[in-house]
Amino acid sequence: MRQKVIGVMGPGQGATPSEIEQAYQLGELIAANGWILLTGGRNAGVMAAVNQGAKAQGGLTIGILPDNCPETAADAVDVLIKTDLGQGRNNVNVLSSDVIIACGMGLGTASEVALGLKAGKTVILLTDNALNIQFFRQFAPDHLQVALTVKEAVRLVQEQFNLV
Amino acid sequence: MRQKVIGVMGPGQGATPSEIEQAYQLGELIAANGWILLTGGRNAGVMAAVNQGAKAQGGLTIGILPDNCPETAADAVDVLIKTDLGQGRNNVNVLSSDVIIACGMGLGTASEVALGLKAGKTVILLTDNALNIQFFRQFAPDHLQVALTVKEAVRLVQEQFNLV
Amino acid sequence: MRQKVIGVMGPGQGATPSEIEQAYQLGELIAANGWILLTGGRNAGVMAAVNQGAKAQGGLTIGILPDNCPETAADAVDVLIKTDLGQGRNNVNVLSSDVIIACGMGLGTASEVALGLKAGKTVILLTDNALNIQFFRQFAPDHLQVALTVKEAVRLVQEQFNLV
Amino acid sequence: MRQKVIGVMGPGQGATPSEIEQAYQLGELIAANGWILLTGGRNAGVMAAVNQGAKAQGGLTIGILPDNCPETAADAVDVLIKTDLGQGRNNVNVLSSDVIIACGMGLGTASEVALGLKAGKTVILLTDNALNIQFFRQFAPDHLQVALTVKEAVRLVQEQFNLV
Repeated sequence: MRQKVIGVMGPGQGATPSEIEQAYQLGELIAANGWILLTGGRNAGVMAAVNQGAKAQGGLTIGILPDNCPETAADAVDVLIKTDLGQGRNNVNVLSSDVIIACGMGLGTASEVALGLKAGKTVILLTDNALNIQFFRQFAPDHLQVALTVKEAVRLVQEQFNLV
Repeated sequence: MRQKVIGVMGPGQGATPSEIEQAYQLGELIAANGWILLTGGRNAGVMAAVNQGAKAQGGLTIGILPDNCPETAADAVDVLIKTDLGQGRNNVNVLSSDVIIACGMGLGTASEVALGLKAGKTVILLTDNALNIQFFRQFAPDHLQVALTVKEAVRLVQEQFNLV
Repeated sequence: MRQKVIGVMGPGQGATPSEIEQAYQLGELIAANGWILLTGGRNAGVMAAVNQGAKAQGGLTIGILPDNCPETAADAVDVLIKTDLGQGRNNVNVLSSDVIIACGMGLGTASEVALGLKAGKTVILLTDNALNIQFFRQFAPDHLQVALTVKEAVRLVQEQFNLV
Repeated sequence: MRQKVIGVMGPGQGATPSEIEQAYQLGELIAANGWILLTGGRNAGVMAAVNQGAKAQGGLTIGILPDNCPETAADAVDVLIKTDLGQGRNNVNVLSSDVIIACGMGLGTASEVALGLKAGKTVILLTDNALNIQFFRQFAPDHLQVALTVKEAVRLVQEQFNLV
């Protein structure tokens, strides 16, 4: 049976300390649930933290790099997909994820949330930012979900998989 | 000297009659200024209308298709770039445009505005929708511009090219 | 009516003087026939020469760049498609061409001939190199054509378009 | 420490029974060496067989699909990367592989061998076909290796990793 892949999207630069902490905890819980973690793979911000959390729990981590440079990748990524597609890889990120969680928001993350919703994926915004929620909700009220805590985000993923 | 390329992004489905009309007028003015029009190429909504407007004024039109199917392309596109990249082509759209104008807003367009701003492009939102303006402005206050009318959008492009 | 696009593929580095000369003549004849020239866009070897030939005859030239750097593009390219897809753009080159001509052969060109034939395109090898002809002919005897001269290559394109 | 990824490329359609058998054995040995298997992911020919072999030995298998359709994927693929890039994904396949083995030869495989060599990867042709060997050797004599048996191919990979 195919393994479940959870995509965690979030800023490399400009992530807040709180987002970094949430990302780490997300990684831990994703691995603890036996899911595979997929990220943009870079050694920065949310991407680095969520991979560290997942590896701390022995999870499997996949990184979809925008370039062909393993040196830019987070150490805690097990398998590097080196696309050399630039930001064109953002669509690969979301299509390859069964569920997408956005932790923090920047322009790259915004493109991934938009592309994920366009592809009909469930996207969970881990945020209390009303502007960001409202912006995306107007386009896809049925597929956009919101979580205020890491635990709630993970529970929403479990619901998607009919595990609760 | 390399020709100027203006990318017009907007919804295929769900565009309003007013957006369709604005798109047509945009196409006319882009061609009248001697600029090349670049769009996502599909025969729907804003993409179809802006190409028709540009051809009515004898402009050159480029369409960057997500698929490999000329049948899905707008008739008024002169040159089809058949990418077969799906929504991965959205990044090609914005990188290939000197200036980007968003006419209407949907998930595909939102991804293009985000990717355009991330690439450091000037993106002009042709809209009075405060939510959409506010959402993107938080990430790139310097590169996001807003126009309420087609004429104003075109004037902003001229300013970019130091023509006014 | 959609304009015809002829893709000319050939090495940037390592092209012979004879291939460069053939490329220039190809560009002239493509433009003289009213066709659009499509190349990989870089300012090197066959790509640079064929674009110069086409512009000398007033043709329209499209360059599909692997990067996002206009500085790497041939001066004689009118419209730059900046993909930032690396060699992933090679498939865009061939899908966007109605007919493909390979002038010279290197690894990038070989990938384009293979992808072009796989997509069911007519690919014309402008060469007398028996090894290269034999290699590709084994996979697609019906779609691979061979020309020994530039004029013959152009006549084969005209045949494709039922012009002779 | 990052895990080693071996890319096995080969035809979906048109693979011979002998190539299918070699692919299965390759998969077994790749998994037995603790390497990750990467393929184009489709449920056909060499791709299906090599994944079955790897799973029979408990290996980890990654499939880089050209589409967004899990139904077209081989059952024995653990992690699906759904690119929706068409044959544009072939470059992702080779960039993401530390070493590439070509088992059988078709147009897709030929494009991957060419792109792999262009990226400076070691590519091992598992074949005794002199034409195919000669064609690729002319471009990259240092990076092209040839193996007549599955065991020899695996030994060449071990040499690459300085394990023998």
